[in-house]
Amino acid sequence: MLVDIVSTGQPPGLRIPRRTMPRANNPASRTSAFRLMSAAERLIGEHGYHNVSLVQIARAAGQANKYAVQYHFGTKENLVRGIFDDRLARIAARRRQLLDALDTRGHASVRELVHAFIYPVYEEVDDRGFHTYARFAERMLETDLPENTWFSSSHFGTTMEIRNRLSDLTPHLPSEEFSIRYRLISALLIQSLSLADRVRVETRPPAAETDASGGQILERAIDIAANALVMGTTPTGETL
Amino acid sequence: MLVDIVSTGQPPGLRIPRRTMPRANNPASRTSAFRLMSAAERLIGEHGYHNVSLVQIARAAGQANKYAVQYHFGTKENLVRGIFDDRLARIAARRRQLLDALDTRGHASVRELVHAFIYPVYEEVDDRGFHTYARFAERMLETDLPENTWFSSSHFGTTMEIRNRLSDLTPHLPSEEFSIRYRLISALLIQSLSLADRVRVETRPPAAETDASGGQILERAIDIAANALVMGTTPTGETL
Repeated sequence: MLVDIVSTGQPPGLRIPRRTMPRANNPASRTSAFRLMSAAERLIGEHGYHNVSLVQIARAAGQANKYAVQYHFGTKENLVRGIFDDRLARIAARRRQLLDALDTRGHASVRELVHAFIYPVYEEVDDRGFHTYARFAERMLETDLPENTWFSSSHFGTTMEIRNRLSDLTPHLPSEEFSIRYRLISALLIQSLSLADRVRVETRPPAAETDASGGQILERAIDIAANALVMGTTPTGETL
Repeated sequence: MLVDIVSTGQPPGLRIPRRTMPRANNPASRTSAFRLMSAAERLIGEHGYHNVSLVQIARAAGQANKYAVQYHFGTKENLVRGIFDDRLARIAARRRQLLDALDTRGHASVRELVHAFIYPVYEEVDDRGFHTYARFAERMLETDLPENTWFSSSHFGTTMEIRNRLSDLTPHLPSEEFSIRYRLISALLIQSLSLADRVRVETRPPAAETDASGGQILERAIDIAANALVMGTTPTGETL
């Protein structure tokens, strides 16, 4: 469900356009809008939604006009929604592809489903190859604002499908137990992307274009997450 | 190694005291200093180090004087160091206790060592029972500033001891592999404390004093972490 636009930060008298997509009448305008989205994604990922102003975003995007966000998106909420729409549409499409490929081959395993969940997020990088979207999404989910302010549920089909299929493959877990493990592994998987970025910065010069260590961290996070779902309910801990 | 105090944010001409502990000549002053530490811990955990000013901290601590942090701690770095000194001294002492108890009983398992690592952090709560220290530490580790600005290595004896003992108990893992898994599970364990807080807020009214769900989330995070260290190096994923 699309929510009404809540106006914030715009100069008095400016008419707020009621749309979630940037003005895109011409290529130059589209480029400006995407630069604003990139800058906002990075800044909000670093500082949090409430600690970044529209003027800072416009400046970081190289815009001379400090009302550039208002011009292209109307409001900060709308800009955030634009970022989610863009990223999530691609992530959902890629997940669909991966799930269809698995289903063509036979029955998908827990690990394959976990991979299909996180790999499309891992693929979403900024122009320097960093996982700015993952950090941005983490920060937005931490805010005190309801999620439906930021994105419509239409992109969540594949998320819910993967969650349900993982639940079906782990009938030994009562639903509350599954829910706790799912939240823990979601946090782990998203964090592994930030960790991959941090390791990449630490090990300058980066190992060529390949970024092998980032992929290795992700693969291990997927192993851990898959194991977390299949392990029994009787704590094996005491004998470990 | 204690680093020299780097002055920031103090009014011109104010003499910066070279100490890491708050002025504590009398109980009232000690109380003010601890209120400032609590406020700083919470605000920095929410917004990040660079997004919180000394004036905001003084105000949140109920101080009329906006230079209260400067008076009690000299600088923001010193205030942060004060928080780490206070929390880490208690965490290290508690870990020592838990490790000694394990050693008296026999040989400590991987799960028991992971428990001794995180449980003392779980015990560090603010006056409302939230894990503000865990969030604060997470945020500080994300900053672009070197860790030795914030804390002296003297509190890290037990951290290193647990890491080394876990490494000794998992000889099947090459050191780079151990290192990746250790970082992933550290992130998971710390995140599980924030997750426990979030679940607690979601399920108002909280289930009495017991906070059973928080403890359950922590226990499961410990299970997952212990499993992550003992699982083999050949990805079992394909067969999961």
